[in-house]
Amino acid sequence: MNRYLLSIDLGGTNTKIALFNSKLSLKAKTSFFTKKFFSNRDKLLSEIIKRSFALIDKNHIRHDQVLAMGIGVPGLVDFAKGKVYYLPNVPHWKNTPLKKVLEKRTRFKVFVDNDVNLMALAELRLGAAKKAKNAVCLTLGTGVGGGLILNGQLFRGSSYCSGEIGHIPLNIWGNKCSCGGRGCLETYVGNKIILSDAKKKLKIKNLTLERLSELYKKKNRIAIKIYNNFAENIGIALVGVVNVLNPDAIIIGGGLSFAGDFVFKKIKQVIRMRAMPVQSSCVKIYKTSLGRDSGLIGAAILARDNLKARNPH
Amino acid sequence: MNRYLLSIDLGGTNTKIALFNSKLSLKAKTSFFTKKFFSNRDKLLSEIIKRSFALIDKNHIRHDQVLAMGIGVPGLVDFAKGKVYYLPNVPHWKNTPLKKVLEKRTRFKVFVDNDVNLMALAELRLGAAKKAKNAVCLTLGTGVGGGLILNGQLFRGSSYCSGEIGHIPLNIWGNKCSCGGRGCLETYVGNKIILSDAKKKLKIKNLTLERLSELYKKKNRIAIKIYNNFAENIGIALVGVVNVLNPDAIIIGGGLSFAGDFVFKKIKQVIRMRAMPVQSSCVKIYKTSLGRDSGLIGAAILARDNLKARNPH
Repeated sequence: MNRYLLSIDLGGTNTKIALFNSKLSLKAKTSFFTKKFFSNRDKLLSEIIKRSFALIDKNHIRHDQVLAMGIGVPGLVDFAKGKVYYLPNVPHWKNTPLKKVLEKRTRFKVFVDNDVNLMALAELRLGAAKKAKNAVCLTLGTGVGGGLILNGQLFRGSSYCSGEIGHIPLNIWGNKCSCGGRGCLETYVGNKIILSDAKKKLKIKNLTLERLSELYKKKNRIAIKIYNNFAENIGIALVGVVNVLNPDAIIIGGGLSFAGDFVFKKIKQVIRMRAMPVQSSCVKIYKTSLGRDSGLIGAAILARDNLKARNPH
Repeated sequence: MNRYLLSIDLGGTNTKIALFNSKLSLKAKTSFFTKKFFSNRDKLLSEIIKRSFALIDKNHIRHDQVLAMGIGVPGLVDFAKGKVYYLPNVPHWKNTPLKKVLEKRTRFKVFVDNDVNLMALAELRLGAAKKAKNAVCLTLGTGVGGGLILNGQLFRGSSYCSGEIGHIPLNIWGNKCSCGGRGCLETYVGNKIILSDAKKKLKIKNLTLERLSELYKKKNRIAIKIYNNFAENIGIALVGVVNVLNPDAIIIGGGLSFAGDFVFKKIKQVIRMRAMPVQSSCVKIYKTSLGRDSGLIGAAILARDNLKARNPH
């Protein structure tokens, strides 16, 4: 009997659902627009379940062939309880007992984790972090997400909320951050902030990230400066992480693509110039190698690994 | 036959040497002024060996009763090779093969580590971090040292140089730091910087830290502001560490004492106010519980543990 893993990547924009076989080959995939369900958490939950069941049925899989379900969410999660603390970009999810709800309604074994943790897990097992002992994973998109691999394992921290690289303070007197802090990296970078900053500086009302990227390629000096600042701020936050954790790999993914290789190179340069020599010469900087499906792959790995483990970790 | 561990804490000011029995009870202790040997590394090494042998002899211990030697140094160390990368506050120690030299000259098994790592190890086994799963240790003195306990073990990083909390950048445009970076925490705090800052602001030429502390107690507004800034800068750097590592304990030691409880309380307050709610409510903040001998105790633990282990870690 073939066995499958049901994998969900709940995103602030799209929610992806996939079936993997037990060897982690992708069998089938679907997705829907998350924002349609922003006003109602329970409708979003129902949509996830409905779409999952439809995908299973469509592929002629029986429910008893599904070993477990892994789900990644964009925010803070109590991994042991499978409870969502909160999701900064999806409203109404504060203190959602996600594992409990999904297990009750699907009858599958369910494991819940932070989405960037799952990307890190996927990169560790199958991607850029495969040979790394200690890796820092970073996604640059609406916000800045982080996941840590330490001593060859996903490191979650004492209440499963480690890796919040977007909330490293860069300026003691900086702007208020949504997290309650001040001057966090996320108050300087992230798609929205960059775009609103660029609109002001370039005096273009309907500016998009694509247009900004074109301006950059045409060597517009303001656009270059905006990308420079963006990369520098991320680089500086990573200098602190490199000096404190002394990792051998940094893996960067997410919306970076809109600036081509430039942002990536600039981040590298800041780390090389500013991190301590021993730590700097130890760390290699990679792009994600698994692309946009890394979260789905990670959720499948999470489900498979924790099903095996007596004590979930 | 009673067995002993020889323990050395090489400091920028004093070097301490101790003998512990195999149950980690202190048997004997001595120390000397490190600065006397700043001009010549080999003389400092000879002094350490001479004083160690004298301590052993004085206590009527035979050399074959000494199980191993542990030594902590104030700087970056390749733990596996026992090689000192460099010591910021002790000249002429760049790339010293300390383990090799000491093993050759003493015939003891030797293990070398960073001093704050050893403090963290001592606090983990016998002190404030005993019940912690993930702890961040911090010493505030000439500089800012750090050591990490992650998943109940000392975490050293990929080239054994993790924990450099003093080199978290606080300001992208800050002053050049001795590490090669810019605006590191250590460019804002540390005894020398605080004293020189205070001398300017208070217009007292021969100001000492003791006098500054007295002024603070007498509610001198400038002194209060200086301590406030000091604690705030440390607090802000720790906010980043708390958000990224989500530890359950922070343990603070070193020269804090000169400001009484005030600095400690203020650091706590900054973390409570500015770290992310889940991470902030998870972390407890302690003072070191083992006092000034924590480094010596840690070096003894290092020697004992690694003697047992097949693969040193």
